[in-house]
Formats: sequence, structure tokens, C-alpha cells
Amino acid sequence: MSPIITLTTDFGLAGPYVAAMKGVILSINPAVRLVDLSHAVAPQDVRGAAILLAEATPWFPAGTLHLAVIDPGVGTRRKIIYAEIGDQRYIAPDNGLLSRLTSKTRPARIIALENSEHWLPSVSNTFHGRDIMAPVAAQLSLGMEPDRLGPPQAQMVELDWPAAQIRGNEIRGEVIWADGFGNLITNITSAMIAMVPGPRRARVEIAGGSLIGIAGTYEDSPADSLTALIGSSGYLEIAVVGGNAKERLIADLGAAVTIRWAREL
Amino acid sequence: MSPIITLTTDFGLAGPYVAAMKGVILSINPAVRLVDLSHAVAPQDVRGAAILLAEATPWFPAGTLHLAVIDPGVGTRRKIIYAEIGDQRYIAPDNGLLSRLTSKTRPARIIALENSEHWLPSVSNTFHGRDIMAPVAAQLSLGMEPDRLGPPQAQMVELDWPAAQIRGNEIRGEVIWADGFGNLITNITSAMIAMVPGPRRARVEIAGGSLIGIAGTYEDSPADSLTALIGSSGYLEIAVVGGNAKERLIADLGAAVTIRWAREL
Amino acid sequence: MSPIITLTTDFGLAGPYVAAMKGVILSINPAVRLVDLSHAVAPQDVRGAAILLAEATPWFPAGTLHLAVIDPGVGTRRKIIYAEIGDQRYIAPDNGLLSRLTSKTRPARIIALENSEHWLPSVSNTFHGRDIMAPVAAQLSLGMEPDRLGPPQAQMVELDWPAAQIRGNEIRGEVIWADGFGNLITNITSAMIAMVPGPRRARVEIAGGSLIGIAGTYEDSPADSLTALIGSSGYLEIAVVGGNAKERLIADLGAAVTIRWAREL
Repeated sequence: MSPIITLTTDFGLAGPYVAAMKGVILSINPAVRLVDLSHAVAPQDVRGAAILLAEATPWFPAGTLHLAVIDPGVGTRRKIIYAEIGDQRYIAPDNGLLSRLTSKTRPARIIALENSEHWLPSVSNTFHGRDIMAPVAAQLSLGMEPDRLGPPQAQMVELDWPAAQIRGNEIRGEVIWADGFGNLITNITSAMIAMVPGPRRARVEIAGGSLIGIAGTYEDSPADSLTALIGSSGYLEIAVVGGNAKERLIADLGAAVTIRWAREL
Repeated sequence: MSPIITLTTDFGLAGPYVAAMKGVILSINPAVRLVDLSHAVAPQDVRGAAILLAEATPWFPAGTLHLAVIDPGVGTRRKIIYAEIGDQRYIAPDNGLLSRLTSKTRPARIIALENSEHWLPSVSNTFHGRDIMAPVAAQLSLGMEPDRLGPPQAQMVELDWPAAQIRGNEIRGEVIWADGFGNLITNITSAMIAMVPGPRRARVEIAGGSLIGIAGTYEDSPADSLTALIGSSGYLEIAVVGGNAKERLIADLGAAVTIRWAREL
Repeated sequence: MSPIITLTTDFGLAGPYVAAMKGVILSINPAVRLVDLSHAVAPQDVRGAAILLAEATPWFPAGTLHLAVIDPGVGTRRKIIYAEIGDQRYIAPDNGLLSRLTSKTRPARIIALENSEHWLPSVSNTFHGRDIMAPVAAQLSLGMEPDRLGPPQAQMVELDWPAAQIRGNEIRGEVIWADGFGNLITNITSAMIAMVPGPRRARVEIAGGSLIGIAGTYEDSPADSLTALIGSSGYLEIAVVGGNAKERLIADLGAAVTIRWAREL
């Protein structure tokens, strides 16, 4: 079976950058199978891409190699790392891109890409995705041992991932991403919701709007109504049935979300 | 030869949904070849996606499996179906998504996905693309018999696809989709045009604009002029040569299009 | 190893065009591996796609077949060609799409696609990507000899690619493309910069803005500052560190860029 390399970038597809990376990889390992995860990450949005990688990559076959290039620090002293997290493998700049994953699962191994032997002969200052990460990924897909890439590294750069808090009879969280339908995904987990004594009577507040009850499915709420439910990633989502909650509420990342319940139900 | 699964969704590529589906499929059948048809379907635009599937999927090798997830009813009682139409195979919510195809070709087989044995162990309320359709598609690509998915079903949900009408010396139709160039594709077929006695002298009216003559190619009309011609799908198209008819005419889906000809030519 | 065909179009992914081409290719050669280069070329932007092809395709394995369909003249008398340039192979309309490549490397071979034996039986007037180019590409990927496609052709259509000029103590060039980050890539090459006696003291002028010094990397300049550096393609780029130079300068393709230096440094 030919190995898989997935690609995640903020390059968009209008220019030649993604295509050049594909060419470099296939030139070194013509048998590799490339899978596009996303090239529509907002420019330099490391946090957004970190969430995307955490939600998507654990679904892949064990040993899949994920190449992620959201790299605002390219050409600076930031490191590039190879990491093993869960049963997946990653190559990425060490800027927090993998830290949503490692906030849940400690990496089994981190290696700093320092051995230039496996890079392109000429490395530009602005495109390490093509010149360093792509050729290294291709070599790994051919079976190269990761310890040939450079020295082990004890830690990686971690971003702050604020957790929702339970205080008395309320849970306070925030919106952590919005999907293409305008659904607002929060950092309030299904485990936290399980502690709400009467979820169908709890009040959910967000961005000046509010609603009563955490629904089981979209079907529980009338069309065009604001609803709160547990989404496919296990987080509380705020949605408009058949509509766009992000536009309706003019709410975005970081917006506060509170669940309040009566002390006695 | 490893089997092909194509993917069509309205998820966009900014979020993790398409990537998660790819991961689930490849985890079950690592040898499958994934082909992206489109993830740029407008959110919840079942009609638009139905046209896309009807225009694109019949070009694929016989037996190709097409997974289409435009699913505004996810989590409700809508069914999910496996269908064989022409020489292609499909998995989709039963919401009309396949009904542009079946308006031309009766399905040879419809099966309701009810046997949860082949689904992910935990099925969310909001993402059946990942939790039901992706694993079932992967199992089918491994050679599983479709009748193991659930019971046969006699019919599927059909959308209304209004046909253009010939009355006296005119044909009345409407715009059914607009492509990325702003060309407006109508439901007036080349077979209908063949009944117009003098197509080069017929008057075509749309959205307050009008033009004379149905051209053979873009070359027949000067740059920047409004033109009508038979497009690549066999339907009458309204175009602006080197420009954007949708913007020029401020016309969109559903806009009336009429061809009139003199009673005697 | 199954052969690779890359795809570059201005079709976008909302409609069925790219999908139909993939279906046609896979129907003829089900073993081929399709690699999307870009379907986000601006509609009918032959120049932009020519730059994309020149920057991206030379990175691919020798013998890769690149199918490029940016074809405003479809249905007119423009030709379609097969060309071998460097170690890559191309199929494209003969409208200048390959001329950024041939401005650096003479094509070893050009063949006009005139033998309709290898086309789809019915060729539309508006979609030769699907009806001519896709089936021919698929046949070539099966090993068909290119001389069966039609007669050799001595030349292809060439676009004008204005070179930057050195005059006295200045270099005058222009912006030739902008990437997804808003970086403005010019036609001033690293070889020309090498002739500037004191690049760190040279004045770079663009669109009414100016700055001093050509940086080695983004790191050399403070965040949010305008900077000039050699980009990953070997051209001078104007960037805003962590920002968008195209928006900041309201500059676009064709904007004049001048490097001036003192006569004595």
C-alpha cells in the first residue's frame, strides 16, 4: 500500500505554492498518495489550523503523515518539528500548530528538523514548506527513520487553550471556531453539559442573545430558530436551524457563552 | 485497481469536516482512491448539488461510488440511501439530492441505510457524513454487498424539476444554474432548440434583456456581447462573450427565459 | 507506478466542470492518479495561470502530464497543443498559457491536437477541456505516442513577458503577481539584485510607497513594516511583515517597482 501524506496550508489555491509542494513530494516519492485536508486556513491563522488538525487528523489510519504549513515565522529562528501524537505523525513549524492536539495527548516523540541533508539543496528564506518540510515528508514516506532528521526535543511551543469553567450554577466558555454554515463551536464539552441538572430548561447566553434548552438534534427546534446542541466534535454548538448563527448573532471567535440553570429544578 | 470514492459536500474546506470524512474512509479502506468533486456547494443547496451530481457523475467509470453530503435534515427522520443509477453508485441523504439523476434514469436499486453495524460506534446528531455515510462507503469499496446495509426501498424523495414548455411559437424555460464564469444555464434542451425553425433569427428574452439568434459558438458573437448558445451539457446557455452574464443581467436561478420566433420565417 | 495527470483550470469547484473532466480521464485510464494544482485561477486569466504553471510544474517528477484549461477562446479557431518543455509534458489551449515556461526553456516538441480519433465522440463548442483535452491526456497516460495526436507545430502563441531593466543606478520592474498573503512578486530577479552594490541601503519604490534596503528574511524587519526581499521563486517581493502588502499599497499587477542606489556607496 502506498503511504499517505496529508496537506494543510494557509496558501489558498490561487497561487503556485501548494502545487510546488506536491511536485517536490512526488519527485522524491512518486508512489505517495497526497490527500488535501485544507488550503483554506485563513492567512497565518495558527490557532484555527491547530483546531482543524486536532479535529480531523485523529480520524486517519495509524501512521499517516500530516504536513501542516501555517508558518508566519518562516525565515526566523522558529524551529520545524516532526512529532508523533496519538497514532499519527506530523511535520509542522514549531509555533503551536500541534498544540491543540497535545493539549489532549502528550506527544510520544518530538524531533527538531536540523539535518539539512534531506532538504532541497537551496533553501529559500520564505518557503520552508517547499524547501524543507515537503522533502522531509517525502523521505519519511519512503521509510526514513525520523531520528535522522535531527535531535530529539523535549517540548514544543504550546498555545493557551482556555477551558470552560463551572462556577456554582453556571458554565462559562467561549466560541473557539465557526464552521462554513456559521455554526459557532464553543469550548464547553459534552462532559460539562452532563453536569447540568436540567439541560432542557437551562438558559444559554451568547453575544446578547439567549435561548432556553440544550437540544438533542436540529429537529428539536423550529426552522430559523437559535438552538444550542452538542455538535459532532463533542462541544456545545450554537446554531440557527437552516440558517447562519455567526451572521445572526454577529458573534465570532472568543465570544462569551454562558449556560445558567436554576439552583433548584 | 483500487476503487474510487468521490466526495461532494457543502462543507467548504476551511473546517475539519471534509478532512474527517477522508480520514474515516481511509481508516477502513486505506487503499481507496478519493476524488474531490466539489466541497463548494452553497450551504444546504440540495438543488444545486443535485444538478452538479447529474452533470458530473455519469462521466465516471462504471461502478464508481459517489458520496454526497448536503444534508440540512441531519439528525431528523430523513433517511440515508444507497442507490444505483445508470452505471454509477451513490450514497446520500434521501432529500432529493439524487433526483436530478433519477429524473432521467430510473434507479435500478435503492437501499435504506438502517443497519448500524457498519456505522461508527458512536453516531453524532449533526454529522452523519462522517459517522454513517463515510464508513458505509468505505465498506462498499471493500466489496461489501449493498443488501447488508438495510432494506430495499421502492422510491426516493423527488424534487420538482420543471421542464421548459413549447407553446405555439415560443419556448418558455428558466435558469437552473449559473457557473463560475457567470454563464446562465437554462432548462431549455438542444432537442427543443432543434424545433425552432430559424434559430439564428429567434428572439431570446431573459430578465428584461433580449438578443437575436442562437449562436453556434462564442466565436459567432462580438466580445462583450450577450449571446445564447447550446452549452456543454446540451442546454441553452446565456453568456456574455469574455464577460459575466449573471452580473450583467442581474439574473439568477429561476429567471424566466423565452425563445420566440416569427410564425413564418 | 500509475501515471500522474495534474489539473489546472479557472472553473472553480462550485460547478460540475472539473468533476466531469476527472470522470472522463478516469473512465479512459482508471489507474491514473489525478493531482489538483489549482481550480482557483481567476476566470480567463491566462497570464496568471501561465505564471502558476511556470512556478509550480517544474517541481514535478520528469514526464508528469499537466492538463491546463484556461480557455477563453474555446470554440474559436485557437489550437490545442501538446508540448514538452524541460522534463514536463503539457496539454493546453495554444493561447500563451505555456509561454511563461517557454520564455525560459525552449519546448522540445509541440504537436497540434487535430486527430479527433482520440476525442470524445461528440465535441461541444464550449467545453474542450472535457471533450478533447481530458480524453487525450488520459490516452497519453496510457502510453499513446504523442505524434498520433496531430502534426508537429513549430511555434506556440507567446505572450509578452516584460523583463525588468537596469539603467545606470536603478532597476525598473513591475509587479507580476500577488499571492494569497498579499505579497507582491515582481519581475526583478535575484541575479539583478546581485548587481546592486549595497542592497541594504538601496531605496525600493512602489506605488507611491518606498522603503530602504532589501532584507534577507522577514525576520530582518519589524512586524507590520513594509519590506522587500528575495522570495521563494527568486524574484524580489514586496511584503508587509505579518500583513498584506497588496491591500496596504493598493497595488496590483503591473505596478511599477524601482530600486535606486547611490552612485557611490
